[in-house]
Amino acid sequence: MAEQIEFDQAHQTLQEVSDALDNGRFVFVRRQLQSMEPEDIAHLLEASPRKSREVLWQLTDPEDYGEILDELSEDVKDNLVSKMAPGKLAEATEGMDTDDVAYVLRSLPNKVSREVLSQMDAADRLRVETALSYPEDTAGGIMNTDVTTIRGDVDIDVVLRYMRMKGELPEATDTLYVIDDDDRLIGNLSLTTLLTTQPDVPVIEVMSHADEAIAVDLSDTDVASLFERRNWVSAPVVDQNQHLVGRITIDDVVDIIREDAEHSMMSLAGLDDDEDTFAPVVKSARRRSIWLGVNVLAALAAASVSNMFEATLEQMAAIAVLMTIVPSMGGVAGNQTVALVIRGLALGYIGDSNRKELLMKEAAIGFLNGILWALIIGAIVVFWKHDWMLGFIISAAMLTNLFVAGVAGVTIPVILKKMNIDPALAGGMALTTITDVVGLSVFLGLATIFLL
Amino acid sequence: MAEQIEFDQAHQTLQEVSDALDNGRFVFVRRQLQSMEPEDIAHLLEASPRKSREVLWQLTDPEDYGEILDELSEDVKDNLVSKMAPGKLAEATEGMDTDDVAYVLRSLPNKVSREVLSQMDAADRLRVETALSYPEDTAGGIMNTDVTTIRGDVDIDVVLRYMRMKGELPEATDTLYVIDDDDRLIGNLSLTTLLTTQPDVPVIEVMSHADEAIAVDLSDTDVASLFERRNWVSAPVVDQNQHLVGRITIDDVVDIIREDAEHSMMSLAGLDDDEDTFAPVVKSARRRSIWLGVNVLAALAAASVSNMFEATLEQMAAIAVLMTIVPSMGGVAGNQTVALVIRGLALGYIGDSNRKELLMKEAAIGFLNGILWALIIGAIVVFWKHDWMLGFIISAAMLTNLFVAGVAGVTIPVILKKMNIDPALAGGMALTTITDVVGLSVFLGLATIFLL
Repeated sequence: MAEQIEFDQAHQTLQEVSDALDNGRFVFVRRQLQSMEPEDIAHLLEASPRKSREVLWQLTDPEDYGEILDELSEDVKDNLVSKMAPGKLAEATEGMDTDDVAYVLRSLPNKVSREVLSQMDAADRLRVETALSYPEDTAGGIMNTDVTTIRGDVDIDVVLRYMRMKGELPEATDTLYVIDDDDRLIGNLSLTTLLTTQPDVPVIEVMSHADEAIAVDLSDTDVASLFERRNWVSAPVVDQNQHLVGRITIDDVVDIIREDAEHSMMSLAGLDDDEDTFAPVVKSARRRSIWLGVNVLAALAAASVSNMFEATLEQMAAIAVLMTIVPSMGGVAGNQTVALVIRGLALGYIGDSNRKELLMKEAAIGFLNGILWALIIGAIVVFWKHDWMLGFIISAAMLTNLFVAGVAGVTIPVILKKMNIDPALAGGMALTTITDVVGLSVFLGLATIFLL
Repeated sequence: MAEQIEFDQAHQTLQEVSDALDNGRFVFVRRQLQSMEPEDIAHLLEASPRKSREVLWQLTDPEDYGEILDELSEDVKDNLVSKMAPGKLAEATEGMDTDDVAYVLRSLPNKVSREVLSQMDAADRLRVETALSYPEDTAGGIMNTDVTTIRGDVDIDVVLRYMRMKGELPEATDTLYVIDDDDRLIGNLSLTTLLTTQPDVPVIEVMSHADEAIAVDLSDTDVASLFERRNWVSAPVVDQNQHLVGRITIDDVVDIIREDAEHSMMSLAGLDDDEDTFAPVVKSARRRSIWLGVNVLAALAAASVSNMFEATLEQMAAIAVLMTIVPSMGGVAGNQTVALVIRGLALGYIGDSNRKELLMKEAAIGFLNGILWALIIGAIVVFWKHDWMLGFIISAAMLTNLFVAGVAGVTIPVILKKMNIDPALAGGMALTTITDVVGLSVFLGLATIFLL
């Protein structure tokens, strides 16, 4: 009888294993690991601090290594693989998908990866070498080469007998590929069609024509986007001569979809997509300090603006007190627009045809919210500082800055994209710099003109 | 022969259709739409400004409505559905998955949805009503009820004949479900096993036992997480008595995975996950102003801190000029940690067992980067303002604030999660408030003590 899954179980196991590790109860941990599914061990490794992770890896049954490596994120995978002997690694690759073996080998020093290759059996080696010949962020890099092909001129009955003779089909097979005499892809026969068709019908009559095959050099992001839109479970990959070279399955695509979607958030914060939650301190600190360095320039730009108005600040401390409010509101409003535009660009919703509409819309939103918050902040400042002119000045600066934020929030990511700079990486920082500089200039400038 | 997909084609079509709409060439647009796949029309609608979207919808063949609605994001779907007559809507539902019909009906006024239901045929209505009886963010809300079941005691041969008799299987079927006399799920027979097994073997001998079925009340996020970890293409859903009630397929889960991953970025910016890129201005402005209102409080908190040091600011304008640098660096550093922790919490990598490790790691990174940037900014300030004490003070404030940013970056999202507040929504704002207040207090406080 089916047992319903206790979802919190994973966290409980994590806690138990972690306690047992701390107390040196390695036998218990080893037994726990033996009773777990490879994908759950992968999750446990991801959630473990570096040191425990290495101990856990030692205690894991090497038979599971391949399947576990398949599931790990890149940073964590690299870390564990870098400590394995080539012989052990070659053994582990037996349980892995071709594309994942290729990934692991790419991250190794050339000498080690050649050694691993030399210890694999000939058929596997050929497959992996084929995968290695494609760039890793293309269809060729993520495809598997274990396709099941049939001829179009045979009857369904023959296919059924062929299947039983094979005795096993590659994982996640939902379609057989129909090829012609030159190994060119001419159609797909889904397993459901195969099962529901009468035995004496020729394949060519019921197959669907392969009008949509993935080109081997299509980027992985475009592959993911196609899978998502077409609701595919698997898809054939062809080279420029329409020869079938492999197939891509949804499980590899799901990882790309998640990584692409996470990319925006991580990049906006200046992080690597596959930053390991438990990366070593010094490595993380170095990576992140680069981003802080960029922000130092932004912060110094803002300070230089204030510096131009030093005389004004000297005469009225109230201005210094209030001067952070307008940049702050502009930054928040602009980053809302940036987030929306970055998602729109990533999903392909924004192009030449609708950019103007979007700009008008965001400018209008900036203007409306500008009026609202200009009135509110103006009123607060008049009550607080008992100075009508100061209230008027901060209102004018607020309205200007929120309008600029809306316009810049659309134009910055779009321009960055045109310049082939990742808008998710540079967009938020560039926006904040602009809203800081504009907000401070307008507020301090007006104050200098009208208050002194 | 397979034709390779031109990926930029979508954008080209978008441009063409949009130009044709502007010039009133409706016949051309209608013809274009007829030649497109429903999922590409959905993409076109997502990428179109509101007004063109409604015209496009009018020009689309109503036969495609169901399939297109299946693919649209929630905001856009609501917008189009709200303008359709109940009769037309009932027709459109014929081409849709049960779970999507239920979604559409949920968003309609009760009177209209009852009218739509009454115009559907009896079998469809029963299915949709079943789906409506489960909350929409649970397994029950996203499952389909079109499952194919078989008995365990029959031979493979009987199943094969049964399949051919049916003549058609539900979309994305990769597994048949084996049930006992009480309709309880006892196992799965994958189509690949069915095809590769000899005809005289009983099902029960080759099926895999259903030890992992999804409970009907499991949350959709947990369902997505299971699919992702287990690499499932479909999975059975059971009620508390282990009765098979439906199945979930990967295409619905992919949408949830993308939405969950996007949720963090959109929430950190204070946006709704399914905010339509071309939402009406007033609606968007209202939604976003709430977030700006929260930020006003944060900005006023920072201004209040500066206000306490008004006397200091009055005496030294250089302090006002430099006072934005430390909060800015703290905000950026802290938001890196927040982004990492939010992702870790969402993926289930962070729990009671490793929280302390993570806190130590992030505090250490904050300390290291604090030292680095304290030295650099200190040096810049000494050169710029020719004041050793001012340089020392900004260094001390920088070190403190980056350390606090690391600690707060871990603790804030973790605490919010414990309080059942979405860390992605409130985390960034709370962090920035803290780094602003701490950065300003330490810098202005030290300046008051040592410079006056």
